[in-house]
Amino acid sequence: MLQAFLDMERRSYWLDSEVFRHSLKAFIGGQDMADKESLFADLVTASRILANEGICDAFGHISIRNPQNPERFFLARAVAPELVTRDDIMEFELDGTPLNDDRKPFLERFIHGSLLEMREDVNSVVHSHSRGVIPFGVTGTPLRPLLHSCGVLGKDIPVWDAGDAFGDTNLLIGNIAMGRDFAASLGAGRAALMRGHGSTVVGRSIREAVYTAVYLDVNAQLQAVSMQMGPVKFLTDGEISLIQSRLADAKPGEGYDRAWQYWARRAGIAAGDPVP
Amino acid sequence: MLQAFLDMERRSYWLDSEVFRHSLKAFIGGQDMADKESLFADLVTASRILANEGICDAFGHISIRNPQNPERFFLARAVAPELVTRDDIMEFELDGTPLNDDRKPFLERFIHGSLLEMREDVNSVVHSHSRGVIPFGVTGTPLRPLLHSCGVLGKDIPVWDAGDAFGDTNLLIGNIAMGRDFAASLGAGRAALMRGHGSTVVGRSIREAVYTAVYLDVNAQLQAVSMQMGPVKFLTDGEISLIQSRLADAKPGEGYDRAWQYWARRAGIAAGDPVP
Amino acid sequence: MLQAFLDMERRSYWLDSEVFRHSLKAFIGGQDMADKESLFADLVTASRILANEGICDAFGHISIRNPQNPERFFLARAVAPELVTRDDIMEFELDGTPLNDDRKPFLERFIHGSLLEMREDVNSVVHSHSRGVIPFGVTGTPLRPLLHSCGVLGKDIPVWDAGDAFGDTNLLIGNIAMGRDFAASLGAGRAALMRGHGSTVVGRSIREAVYTAVYLDVNAQLQAVSMQMGPVKFLTDGEISLIQSRLADAKPGEGYDRAWQYWARRAGIAAGDPVP
Amino acid sequence: MLQAFLDMERRSYWLDSEVFRHSLKAFIGGQDMADKESLFADLVTASRILANEGICDAFGHISIRNPQNPERFFLARAVAPELVTRDDIMEFELDGTPLNDDRKPFLERFIHGSLLEMREDVNSVVHSHSRGVIPFGVTGTPLRPLLHSCGVLGKDIPVWDAGDAFGDTNLLIGNIAMGRDFAASLGAGRAALMRGHGSTVVGRSIREAVYTAVYLDVNAQLQAVSMQMGPVKFLTDGEISLIQSRLADAKPGEGYDRAWQYWARRAGIAAGDPVP
Repeated sequence: MLQAFLDMERRSYWLDSEVFRHSLKAFIGGQDMADKESLFADLVTASRILANEGICDAFGHISIRNPQNPERFFLARAVAPELVTRDDIMEFELDGTPLNDDRKPFLERFIHGSLLEMREDVNSVVHSHSRGVIPFGVTGTPLRPLLHSCGVLGKDIPVWDAGDAFGDTNLLIGNIAMGRDFAASLGAGRAALMRGHGSTVVGRSIREAVYTAVYLDVNAQLQAVSMQMGPVKFLTDGEISLIQSRLADAKPGEGYDRAWQYWARRAGIAAGDPVP
Repeated sequence: MLQAFLDMERRSYWLDSEVFRHSLKAFIGGQDMADKESLFADLVTASRILANEGICDAFGHISIRNPQNPERFFLARAVAPELVTRDDIMEFELDGTPLNDDRKPFLERFIHGSLLEMREDVNSVVHSHSRGVIPFGVTGTPLRPLLHSCGVLGKDIPVWDAGDAFGDTNLLIGNIAMGRDFAASLGAGRAALMRGHGSTVVGRSIREAVYTAVYLDVNAQLQAVSMQMGPVKFLTDGEISLIQSRLADAKPGEGYDRAWQYWARRAGIAAGDPVP
Repeated sequence: MLQAFLDMERRSYWLDSEVFRHSLKAFIGGQDMADKESLFADLVTASRILANEGICDAFGHISIRNPQNPERFFLARAVAPELVTRDDIMEFELDGTPLNDDRKPFLERFIHGSLLEMREDVNSVVHSHSRGVIPFGVTGTPLRPLLHSCGVLGKDIPVWDAGDAFGDTNLLIGNIAMGRDFAASLGAGRAALMRGHGSTVVGRSIREAVYTAVYLDVNAQLQAVSMQMGPVKFLTDGEISLIQSRLADAKPGEGYDRAWQYWARRAGIAAGDPVP
Repeated sequence: MLQAFLDMERRSYWLDSEVFRHSLKAFIGGQDMADKESLFADLVTASRILANEGICDAFGHISIRNPQNPERFFLARAVAPELVTRDDIMEFELDGTPLNDDRKPFLERFIHGSLLEMREDVNSVVHSHSRGVIPFGVTGTPLRPLLHSCGVLGKDIPVWDAGDAFGDTNLLIGNIAMGRDFAASLGAGRAALMRGHGSTVVGRSIREAVYTAVYLDVNAQLQAVSMQMGPVKFLTDGEISLIQSRLADAKPGEGYDRAWQYWARRAGIAAGDPVP
């Protein structure tokens, strides 16, 4: 009974929402709507996980490619990640143009668009200023995975400096040209740092992107402490490769999924709960 | 209905309050009262944000210039920032004299008065002992912005030492002479450290002052870690200037405002909530 | 009345549970069932303590030997430690084979099985990736107890490197051969580190294992800071020996027991509360 | 009405309590009982503050001299500080003998007794293993106040090593001889470290002792970071003296009292609340 009521409430919420009106034409019929409902629930959950795990503070954002139309992506309007609700989600072209939506978008939506444009294998992007990572960007100290759960980061984590190609800026990626320049620096990688600004990670799925963002910061914190003690034994190339294979083949309850269930609960969204 | 009730409650609370009686003569008519109501709500919210974000502990305070009379300012009575309520707010002359109020004021109200006296562009001051900043004051290590969200701090962050002009003291700024000496060291800046004591930041608005106080501590923590790794690339003068321009031109939902909404919610005061 | 109702509820919960059906044959009569009930409550509580104290995040696990059959042990199915409930507990042979249970087990159950196999004195094993410890594993810096509450760790805390015997792996202990190789490195010790992976501790009781896991991380954090200051005076062998004697002889309210009561309350499980 | 009910409840709780029965003979008439009620409420509050501020974990304790009989003191039975309630309080002779109470006392009650015996000016003692302080004890790095709120610590903070006079021990101060040896090392000071064990602070009042314990740990954390940056300018002797004078003369709402109100609220005990 309660579940039926909640479902009904969600549905009517959905029908009344601005998001629904803005993007109805992209979806036809009940199944698609259910898929989108689930996709948006994941995006809201991811946003709150990133806030709750200290990856985002008032700033930072996560996007997901529109599975119905790979030339578009979803991203919340400009609001702190912890406050994102389903109704805040907007849709964008890959060049950052919002779709029939005059709400205020995130300035840095170009990070998402240019990465989704360049990388067909990528479906979700997290941009944050997570604090453990910043010291590596401003000192140019190479960040490399040293813990098995950080093998997801890959061997090379480049540092991009806005000043190299654009001189003095406010450091924000405020147009598609800067976005594409940054994307090129990431190449086929999983994570890249932005000097004096933050970092960005990509994932094939929203769960992979969130996991990568969290463990990028964990690795950075651990590496900072380890380097004070002496030379660090980082993961070998073979270890990184085997760790990534295992994650790619993970079943429900393993890897990304186990972490997601845990983080979602910590963020106040238990499995089966209605998502805000 | 609920809102009407809350509004009514607020109004009657207001009419009964000591603060109202103390400062009624400075305000005439309904609009001013509504403005003051909103100003005091912001001051209480700011105080609780600073406590919740770890900038203040039992000590520290934030002031706001009286927009009706720039020769006066508002500041809570002597109470821990997390416990401040609307009824705790007192009004002061710029020399630190309380207006018809015999409650116990903060000893260090002179920090606020002397900065508001010297700097016409400043409307809000935060003084704290936030812990990330202390090591820079006691070692004289120059603190400089290295992260785009810390560009607000400006290029130079002086360290003031009470001992230079006043010899051995209890380090507190307990009179207007010390306040003015400290204010002179800040000059046209945004933030200054006090050796063995803490730091003080100024803002054109209460939101700017809170944002600056939070990111001063963030920058200090990040710089302490970064300096262990090697030479740090700080923001360039051009970057600082462009970041400050953007913040000054920010629209609702950007910069100070987005952070404020987020921090207020974390401190238990969601948008639209009655403020304690 | 309430207690009677709760007891009844627990009992019927128990009778309906999968765990009960899976392991009924190992237990005969009412007393054994009560013992098992209490054992499982401890295992759930321990799991939540390890999560709440930051020893486990989404990953890590704790086991307990079956007191009715020392050739078997109990361990939750593959789920984040903070989410473990009584119904998640599975039973295993020492070689890691689950008993009539087709739920997904933790891959690394072989750590538990091989230690319980090699060490008759051990009844509980904790495996975690607790963060304070990682830097010691990747730098080979010897971790040694420096605080009286860390005397439980013993004098020697070896670092095991999966690569030494197995070359490139995903670093996880995914079979009994790796488990036994790791167990051999621990020898008669209390704790061992795994390079690029985490650490494992053992205890004669579940309380001892939890206590050892928590204070292993505390010692690591303290040693990292201390080593920056200068040469560290670690506990002497005589001190370690006297501390361990005291812990072994501790009465209710001392040592492991006092810590357990405190950690359980912090994890949301007060004495006498029904365990999830 | 509610208050009257609560008062009545407290009184009957008191009359029924074991503590009351144990120490009734030391108190005559209503006023004394009210004083003791208030003293015990402070001791419980202090215990919870120390836990909530991270000074104590499962271990550590705070005592208060019996104002009716300076040759005795109050201290909880052996239980984690966060779990202490009024009914847990026991009374002791200065040599550590409990008064008509067969509950399990803290082993280290001798720390309290020997300090109260040696120092007539001291009325409250806090012993903890607070983590910021430990590195100084094991490296012998002199800990000195660098922040005005840490001036309370005084200029010299000795490190006592149990091994100097007693050889290998379990490091705990388990008899009055060790207690007196430690007390002698503190001399006329405010705080002393115990190598490999923790630290102890004293206060003329319970508020002073709690404040000193908190800021000892704050100073240690700040000094550890500062020393990585370069030579530290500590407080001068004159500054320490002036800070201590101010604290001694503090009025309600200043210094110890303002911090106490704040910490008590954070620990879940607002002013006027019944204490557990």
